[in-house]
This record gives sequence, structure tokens and C-alpha cells, in this order.
Amino acid sequence: MIKVLRLSHRPGRDKRLTTHVALVARAFGADELVYTGVRDPALEDSIRKVVRKWGGNFKISHSNSWKSIITDFMGKKVHLTMYGVPIDDKMPELRGMDLLVVVGGEKVPPELYKMADFNLSVGNQPHSEAAALAICLDRYFQGKQFKTRKMGLIMKPSERGKIVVKR
Amino acid sequence: MIKVLRLSHRPGRDKRLTTHVALVARAFGADELVYTGVRDPALEDSIRKVVRKWGGNFKISHSNSWKSIITDFMGKKVHLTMYGVPIDDKMPELRGMDLLVVVGGEKVPPELYKMADFNLSVGNQPHSEAAALAICLDRYFQGKQFKTRKMGLIMKPSERGKIVVKR
Repeated sequence: MIKVLRLSHRPGRDKRLTTHVALVARAFGADELVYTGVRDPALEDSIRKVVRKWGGNFKISHSNSWKSIITDFMGKKVHLTMYGVPIDDKMPELRGMDLLVVVGGEKVPPELYKMADFNLSVGNQPHSEAAALAICLDRYFQGKQFKTRKMGLIMKPSERGKIVVKR
Repeated sequence: MIKVLRLSHRPGRDKRLTTHVALVARAFGADELVYTGVRDPALEDSIRKVVRKWGGNFKISHSNSWKSIITDFMGKKVHLTMYGVPIDDKMPELRGMDLLVVVGGEKVPPELYKMADFNLSVGNQPHSEAAALAICLDRYFQGKQFKTRKMGLIMKPSERGKIVVKR
């Protein structure tokens, strides 16, 4: 089971970024996203709409307490940060375990670094939480996440143009 | 040489997403990003500021014509789209070549599918152009992009907390 925790969502500024983080979580094989910050029904609706159309059981929900999400989680807690140790060094020991993957917003509470079991970096340069999450899940599943079929619409791969198939 | 073309930027709506795409391009080893759509000096400034602080020679620029960027490019042109063929099937033959990697905005001109040498998918589910670009460059460089040092600030990997070192 893989849960993603996205911190400090702000509906105006972060709407599309948090949407991308949630879509990456879903497309790369996570089961659920929980976000803190300001509750955003439009964000939740847009993700549920994708799930209805494209399939699977991915869940999104809001929480007022990032701390309780972390303390209540029974598996390993991984915080993605450019300040951590390289993800490729630690991933072999995490594979197959239940993971809570935490991705920050603009500011990350310093306690998070202590509460996480692992602070892992996807490179040591600034980039994107959507990309960091994608690489983390890609490493966890070793690329096999793209081969798992979800219910709902599927794409027929095509060299030119779009082919959409309803299962 | 790897160039990224980001289509149809809209300053209000896309600012942070295009910023993330550009930061991913830089952090994952591309040399340059060109974007079309509305020119956005604030976007360009924010990327140049990252380059000054964190190092390297990454360039960002605006173009009025996506077609001329594609036709003028001498290497292989790769369009990332969920409707393409799986990236892992084609990447072996692209490695080591000059690439123009095209990532769409909200709407992608249908001609692009024909002008690209390859339409490649990173999974066949909707997610994020930042994540798709990250996976594409990660596959191209086979994870080695994180080991290349840029000039400027570097992070000392740390199990707990932040350590920033000025080179």
C-alpha cells in the first residue's frame, strides 16, 4: 500500500501542481493521496472525475493534521527532499514495504525531517514535487507500474495520433 | 544536446507548471528550454535566478513558432504524449542522440503528431508533463544525471536536516 501526503496546499496558487502530484500518484501506482493546507473541493472533484473516467480505486482526501497522518501510518515514512540522501541508495530496502511518501509545499516543517524514517533526494537540485514523486514510485515499482492496467479507458499505443479504447 | 520545447504557455494559469517543467529539464540534464504561447518575463527571470544560484549553463527562451523550432532542430524530435508508444520500447535507439523533447500544454496541435519522429508515452494514463519529462530524461541518461555536478551550490546528502555547501 502506498499513500502520498502532500503538504500545505493553497487552492489559488497550488491547484494545478497539487492536481499533477495527485495524478502522478495515481498513474504511478499509489493508492491514495492525502493533502493538508486549505481544503479544496474543486481539486478533489477533478481527481475523482479522472478516476471515474480512467479507472482504478485511487482516493483523495484532506486532513488538518500532517502529524497524525505520519504517526498513524504503520509502514515506512519517506520524505522526498533535495536535502536528503540519494533515493537510489535506499530504495532496495524499501521495495515491497508499505510506504507513506511525503512531498512538501512551499515550506516544510523542520520536525518532518525527524519524523520521517528516510529523507530521500531525487537529485540535489531544485525541480518539482511531481517529478520527484514520479521518480520515487518508478524506482519503487521498477517501471512495472506502466504495465498494470486500470479499469476504465485505455490507450492503444500509436505511432501517430490518438486511439482511445473503452474497456 | 537536449532541448525541451514546452508548448502554449499561459502566464496566469501555467506559470508554476512551466517553471517546474523548466526546473526538471535543468535538473535532469537538458541544456535548454524553449517555450511558446505568451512570453513571460517573470518565468524566465525565475529560471535564470535558479541557474545563477545553483549553477550550470541551462538556457530558457521564448519562441513564436513551435513549427520552426521543430523543423530547425537537427536531431531526433520526441513528442511526449499519453497516446504514444511506450517510451521504454524506443529509448534504446535514442540514447546518445541529440533530442528535442516536446511537451504539450492544454491543447496540442494535431500536426505535431506527424512532425515528431517519435510520439512516446510515459504510461497511458493522464498525469503531468513535469513527471513525463523527468522519466524521459531519466531513461535517456539511465539515472546518471543525478551524479553530474553543476557549478554553484551543492547539497551534502543528509539523513536529517539540510546541509548546503558553496563550491
